[in-house]
Amino acid sequence: MTAAPVPASPPADPPYAARRGRLAASAAAAGIDALLVTNLLNVRYLTGFTGSNGALLLAAEGSTVAGGEPAVFCTDGRYLTQSAAQVPDLRREIDRPSDVALARQASGRLGFEAAAVTVAAHAALAAATGAELVPTQGLVEELRAVKDAGEIESLRRACAVADRALAELLAAGGVRAGRTEREIGLDLDQRMRLLGADGPSFETIVAAGAHSAVPHHRPTGAELAAGDLVKFDFGAEVDGYHSDMTRTFVLGRPADWQREIHDVVLQAQQAGRRAAVVGATGGAVDAAARDLVTAAGYGDAFLHGLGHGVGLEIHEAPGLARGLTGIIAADMCVTVEPGVYLAGRGGVRIEDSGVVRGPARPGQPEPGYEVLTTTPRELLQL
Amino acid sequence: MTAAPVPASPPADPPYAARRGRLAASAAAAGIDALLVTNLLNVRYLTGFTGSNGALLLAAEGSTVAGGEPAVFCTDGRYLTQSAAQVPDLRREIDRPSDVALARQASGRLGFEAAAVTVAAHAALAAATGAELVPTQGLVEELRAVKDAGEIESLRRACAVADRALAELLAAGGVRAGRTEREIGLDLDQRMRLLGADGPSFETIVAAGAHSAVPHHRPTGAELAAGDLVKFDFGAEVDGYHSDMTRTFVLGRPADWQREIHDVVLQAQQAGRRAAVVGATGGAVDAAARDLVTAAGYGDAFLHGLGHGVGLEIHEAPGLARGLTGIIAADMCVTVEPGVYLAGRGGVRIEDSGVVRGPARPGQPEPGYEVLTTTPRELLQL
Repeated sequence: MTAAPVPASPPADPPYAARRGRLAASAAAAGIDALLVTNLLNVRYLTGFTGSNGALLLAAEGSTVAGGEPAVFCTDGRYLTQSAAQVPDLRREIDRPSDVALARQASGRLGFEAAAVTVAAHAALAAATGAELVPTQGLVEELRAVKDAGEIESLRRACAVADRALAELLAAGGVRAGRTEREIGLDLDQRMRLLGADGPSFETIVAAGAHSAVPHHRPTGAELAAGDLVKFDFGAEVDGYHSDMTRTFVLGRPADWQREIHDVVLQAQQAGRRAAVVGATGGAVDAAARDLVTAAGYGDAFLHGLGHGVGLEIHEAPGLARGLTGIIAADMCVTVEPGVYLAGRGGVRIEDSGVVRGPARPGQPEPGYEVLTTTPRELLQL
Repeated sequence: MTAAPVPASPPADPPYAARRGRLAASAAAAGIDALLVTNLLNVRYLTGFTGSNGALLLAAEGSTVAGGEPAVFCTDGRYLTQSAAQVPDLRREIDRPSDVALARQASGRLGFEAAAVTVAAHAALAAATGAELVPTQGLVEELRAVKDAGEIESLRRACAVADRALAELLAAGGVRAGRTEREIGLDLDQRMRLLGADGPSFETIVAAGAHSAVPHHRPTGAELAAGDLVKFDFGAEVDGYHSDMTRTFVLGRPADWQREIHDVVLQAQQAGRRAAVVGATGGAVDAAARDLVTAAGYGDAFLHGLGHGVGLEIHEAPGLARGLTGIIAADMCVTVEPGVYLAGRGGVRIEDSGVVRGPARPGQPEPGYEVLTTTPRELLQL
C-alpha cells in the first residue's frame, strides 16, 4: 500500500489577500458596498479555508466592513482550530448560521451570490440584516478563470499524478483482456490515491469496445476483449485542483476504422491545442478542431464541445464550444478534447489539460497552450 | 482486484408511485396545486432517476399537471436513454433548464423547494411561469425519514459491506504499528469498493493515539504505535444509501484509562440503542446514553449529539441530540454513537446504524432498535 508520492510543490506566498483585492475592485465596479461570499469553493479561493461551512464578508474597494476592516470570516465551532490555521490573516468569528452572522454586520448595498444562496437562505439573510440585498453573479468565478502561479502548480501536480498512475497501470499489465472496466477503474483510482491524490477528479471512465462510443460511459462488469478500443477519461484531485485527461488504446492490432478515427481525433486535438491562444474566442478554438473532424466526414460523430476550464471545479469557465464568444486570456487552464463516436462500434477521445500562456517574458514559458498531461497520445497497442 | 461482492437483494416492486402518492397528499395539505421538486436526492427518491440533472412536477392530490397527468419528469439530452430506463412510468420531457421547462406548464399555486432553489433559479422560474411560486420546506425530507422495505434492504447491504471490509482488513493484519492512518484508510476504502460499494459514505476516519480524541479527524501520515487507541468511523454507499459505523480498538494491552472510557461508551451505546424506540423523542434517546456518560464523570468529554438519520444522505432526519422534541417513528433509520474524548490522550466512539422497528407483527422483526452493523463492539486488542 505504499508508493512514492509525487513531491509537493514548495509553499508559495499565500495568494488570498491579492485575490480579495481584485474582488474588492470588482465589487466596487458592480456598485455594491460589500459582498457576502457563501459559495464554499469561492470562500476557499479567497481565504484558503477548506471546511464544510464558512462565509466571507468582503468590503468593496473604498469601503470597510464592521470594525473598519476589509473583510471578516465566519465559520462554526467545529472549525475553530482549522480556521485559525488556514485563515490567520482575517478577523474570524465563530457563529452559525455563518452567513446570517455576517449579514447582520453589513449596511448599505450588500451583494450576495445569487447562484449560491437558496430562497430559504435569502429569507433568513433578509430577516437578519439592515442592508439592501443585491443579487450578483459570477464576480468570483470570473477571477477564478485566470489562474495564478500556485494554482497552475497544483494543476501540474494533479496532472502528474494522473499521468504517473496511468503509466503504472499500463506497466503492471493492468489493461488486458478478461479484466472488467470496473476493476481497471478501481485500480487506476487507487494508484492515484497512493500517489498523493485526494481522490479522482470525477468518476473515472473506463469504456471498452462499443462502450467507448458513449461519451460518458460508467464502468461496468463488462470484460475487455481482444480488438476493443479502450477509452480512459480520468483525473486526480490535488490541493483541491482537478486534472482531466482522456486517452484511447486498442487491445491488439487496430482495425482500419479504429486507426482512422484515432488519426482524425489526434490531428483535431493538435489543431485545438494550437488554436488555444490568448485572444481567441472559445468558439474559434472549437472550430479549429471541429473543422478537421468535419472535413474527414465525422462531424456528426463529434458529440460535444471541445473543452472547458479546469480548476477548483472539474468544469468551470471558460468554455470552448461552438459559438462561444468569450475571449481566452493568459493563464486560463482548459481542456482540449475532441472525440469521434460510432454508435455500436466504438469511439475515440483524446484530451489534455493545459494552460494558455501569454506573451513570453524572460524565464517564462513560450506563448501558447502548455500541455500539463504528458502521457503519449498515439494509439497504443496493448 | 477481484472479490466476492455482497449479493444484491432481489429487485422489489418499484416504490416510486407510492412515494409520489404520499407526497401528493402532503402537497394538498400544504395548500398548493403542484410541487416542483428540484433537489436531486428528492427527485431520485420519487422517481429512481440517478442523473445529475432532472426535475419533477407533481400534482397535489385532487389536481393534475398539464396533460391531465399526476406528474411529469424532465431531464436533458445526456439522459435520454438513462431516464427511459429509470423513469418508465412517467411522462418524460427532454429540455433544459429542466426546472424552467416544468414551471412553464404549471398554473395556480406552485410549490418549490426553498432550501434547494437558488435566488438565481427562482428568478428564472418566476420569469417563465404563470403560476404563483410558493416556498415550501421539508415536504419530501419528512417522507424520507421513514424508510420502506427496499430502503432498509439497501441500508442493510451498505452496512454488510462495511462490516465485511473491516473484518477483512483486520484478518489481513491491516491494522498494525508502523502503518499510517492514511494507508489504512485507503485500504479499507478499497476493500469496500471491491465488495460492491459505490464508494465510502464519507471521508473515512482513521484516528490513532491522540488523534482519536478529535471527533472528526482526517487521516494523516502518522504511523500507528503500540498502545494507541485506533478509531475507525466509516461507511459504504450502496444503491445511494449510506451506512455509518464507528469502532475503537487498541494496539496491544489497553491502559486502565483506555479500558475505562471504552467501558463507559459501550454501556452508553447500549443504553442509547435500548432507548431508540417508537414514540421516544430525539432528546430522550440522547439523554439515555448521555446520562450514563455524565454519571461516570465524562459528561464534558461527550462533545456531540448521540445520532442522526441515515439514508440517501449520511446526515438526515431525525436527529438524536439534547433537547430535540421530534418523535421517533417506526422504520426510521438512525445511528447511535456516543463518544468520550480526552484531549491530547485519546478517545473512544462506538456507533451503529440501525432501524427502529414498530410493534411486532407476524413475520416481522421484534420492536425496538434493530442493529444493521454487526461488527463486535468490544475493545479488540490488536
